Amino acid sequence: MTKLVLFAAFIGCLLLMSFSYDQKKKVLFFGDSITAAGVQPGGYIKMIDSLIRQEGKENRYETIGAGIGGNKVYDLYLRMEDDVLKKEPDIVVIYIGVNDVWHKSSSGTGTDLVKFGKFYEAIVAKLQAKDIKVILCTPAVIGERTDYSNMQDGDLNLYSNWIRQFSRQKELPLVDLRTLFHDYDAKNNPENKESGILTTDRVHLNRAGNWLVAENMWNAIKTIK
Amino acid sequence: MTKLVLFAAFIGCLLLMSFSYDQKKKVLFFGDSITAAGVQPGGYIKMIDSLIRQEGKENRYETIGAGIGGNKVYDLYLRMEDDVLKKEPDIVVIYIGVNDVWHKSSSGTGTDLVKFGKFYEAIVAKLQAKDIKVILCTPAVIGERTDYSNMQDGDLNLYSNWIRQFSRQKELPLVDLRTLFHDYDAKNNPENKESGILTTDRVHLNRAGNWLVAENMWNAIKTIK
Amino acid sequence: MTKLVLFAAFIGCLLLMSFSYDQKKKVLFFGDSITAAGVQPGGYIKMIDSLIRQEGKENRYETIGAGIGGNKVYDLYLRMEDDVLKKEPDIVVIYIGVNDVWHKSSSGTGTDLVKFGKFYEAIVAKLQAKDIKVILCTPAVIGERTDYSNMQDGDLNLYSNWIRQFSRQKELPLVDLRTLFHDYDAKNNPENKESGILTTDRVHLNRAGNWLVAENMWNAIKTIK
Amino acid sequence: MTKLVLFAAFIGCLLLMSFSYDQKKKVLFFGDSITAAGVQPGGYIKMIDSLIRQEGKENRYETIGAGIGGNKVYDLYLRMEDDVLKKEPDIVVIYIGVNDVWHKSSSGTGTDLVKFGKFYEAIVAKLQAKDIKVILCTPAVIGERTDYSNMQDGDLNLYSNWIRQFSRQKELPLVDLRTLFHDYDAKNNPENKESGILTTDRVHLNRAGNWLVAENMWNAIKTIK
Repeated sequence: MTKLVLFAAFIGCLLLMSFSYDQKKKVLFFGDSITAAGVQPGGYIKMIDSLIRQEGKENRYETIGAGIGGNKVYDLYLRMEDDVLKKEPDIVVIYIGVNDVWHKSSSGTGTDLVKFGKFYEAIVAKLQAKDIKVILCTPAVIGERTDYSNMQDGDLNLYSNWIRQFSRQKELPLVDLRTLFHDYDAKNNPENKESGILTTDRVHLNRAGNWLVAENMWNAIKTIK
Repeated sequence: MTKLVLFAAFIGCLLLMSFSYDQKKKVLFFGDSITAAGVQPGGYIKMIDSLIRQEGKENRYETIGAGIGGNKVYDLYLRMEDDVLKKEPDIVVIYIGVNDVWHKSSSGTGTDLVKFGKFYEAIVAKLQAKDIKVILCTPAVIGERTDYSNMQDGDLNLYSNWIRQFSRQKELPLVDLRTLFHDYDAKNNPENKESGILTTDRVHLNRAGNWLVAENMWNAIKTIK
Repeated sequence: MTKLVLFAAFIGCLLLMSFSYDQKKKVLFFGDSITAAGVQPGGYIKMIDSLIRQEGKENRYETIGAGIGGNKVYDLYLRMEDDVLKKEPDIVVIYIGVNDVWHKSSSGTGTDLVKFGKFYEAIVAKLQAKDIKVILCTPAVIGERTDYSNMQDGDLNLYSNWIRQFSRQKELPLVDLRTLFHDYDAKNNPENKESGILTTDRVHLNRAGNWLVAENMWNAIKTIK
Repeated sequence: MTKLVLFAAFIGCLLLMSFSYDQKKKVLFFGDSITAAGVQPGGYIKMIDSLIRQEGKENRYETIGAGIGGNKVYDLYLRMEDDVLKKEPDIVVIYIGVNDVWHKSSSGTGTDLVKFGKFYEAIVAKLQAKDIKVILCTPAVIGERTDYSNMQDGDLNLYSNWIRQFSRQKELPLVDLRTLFHDYDAKNNPENKESGILTTDRVHLNRAGNWLVAENMWNAIKTIK
């Protein structure tokens, strides 16, 4: 009898472990230099790790950073096999677009909107073909002035509109960083400064910026079954 | 005695005519292709001519078009002597800035903001040195979408901010076309179209656009003593 | 006995046909608008078809056009599966690079050299993984002035240098159109004109241009075992 | 009698002094950051000062640096009054064009060729109206690779062609730095490096570059009557 109980307990443990194991979701963050910085101390991915631990979910979620500086949407597409699919993630957060817009004026090598859309769709299609869940993000800011007088505001709004429309059409969760940043800056940037509120240099995130991204991404991640 | 009265009346008429003549103000419109189109049938300068006649002021105001396609602020500066000062205008309406912004992305030959400001100030200083009154305008639109998703919205807002601040600093009258167009489009462009409300092609004015410019410029012109 | 002979002859014919069939090589031309025009009457691919017929090799070679206007190297990469691999070509001629350079200044959406190289290598690797033979081409011209005073000459030379070096490193056949066009123009463009010698509009091929491309590509194609 | 002789000698001395004084030519160097660096220790204007002293002509020539970083041809035009005409130079060396070409791709604010020509002509006309002698220069290099694979080689050749043609048409002396640099690099840059032969950073002059400019400018200056 005791043996039976012990055996049952043992099996129970195994089931629990396998259950826990099955439940541990790999969340991969796929992006540019902002995401590359996300795995550094104080970065938004590190903050998400903290949120996971705070909520006692460290055996249910695992994060993987996959950001490379200077990346545009087609760079993500090129490195999907090695940097994403091989790692077999359950969820991929796509956070891209700043360089696609910015490089137009900084080096003449941005991405036009039609092709941005094509590659974006191709990335999502490849992920969904592997049953990977996808979370989309709009590109946050290049400059924090709140009266839309940052040089790239027009294109950031346009490319964000495309991502928003695509998320509705495909019923994909969206972390609308562009709106979140604009609303935060509208409240916290009364001097209409170019940087220093959520970014250090108009683009890359300071502590408050990392926190805003971490909180909102984490909320989107948790929602996914 | 009658002769004397007639003679006095004649002299009076002469004085009145000479007075009227002295009062006839030359208003010169200094700008780019939008202003070049302004002197064509249906153009905003032709509309101002009509407004002048409607108000019976044709012997008090005379308009001169001085717009050349593709002009940027430094092109205006280069041709001031021949195209403006030689014509001895009383009032100059400066309507420039679209190409300074637009040519950045269309041909790599836009004007950066610091230099835009320098040439703008130099033009105004030269006009004021000749006691010519100056009216400033902000550049209206490159694209009529109302959610600031036109590619050049950031720069148009930035350069317009500079002109607004300069008009306040120098206490110069301003026709804030950018705000006027944005407000008009906000009411009349529910489909968020790129053109067709106030422009034919995102930049150049259709009938409603010419009218909006004509009315507001004329109001500014009349105000000048 | 007669029957046997007839039967043997029949089998022989079948073998010959199947042999011929096996020998028929599919040559796919992968590129941009220049290649899209290549399948039109008078286009370079049509001329290659004529050369094939002239040499009585129509049952040994078959051509397939796969050019799309505005394509850059990353566009080729994106459409490899559908437009190339599915068609199971034996030989692929890669003719790309003009837009990668040109779009830098025309729309701010060119391709920087490092990424041009990465995508180019990825395309070749995918083709070679399927045992498809590859022929490389340098981008010919954007402007036919022979003193290197065409705006994009610097980049065209630079990107062509990369392709030349890559062809040497990988021991891949190269049709060096840039050198061929430059040498032809050096002899035939004494007035240093921008177009009209080998192109209609500085970029797209006229009759002489199509012929120069056709002859040289065909020579490279024939060489491949 | 003696008094008379002494008086005559005194007058003679005065005449000689005034003659010497009249002979001292002010040479102004009008340009961008390359010229701004020219007045620094080791700069090309300092080297010209040394050449003047070596040839014992320090009471016949005086140099004035008038270079400002980032200047394009229209910036020179804007500051002619203050920085050139007020200083009453006898000779002006115009050394401009690098930023007009470079800023097209670096910030979208280059100068198109037609306007480059217009401002260039306007500068020369203003100087000649004051009987100031003019020496022209072609822009040397943006990158020292000798196979015309530097990105801006096309435009530098094109804008230099314009300056060469203008110097012939107006019979103005030309220091053809572009050709001088190319020939020097062709001999001294066997590794086809981007910088380090005549420049420190592809654009700004190292010791050898300053020396090449100084020698050739000084030869042109001496030739002017």
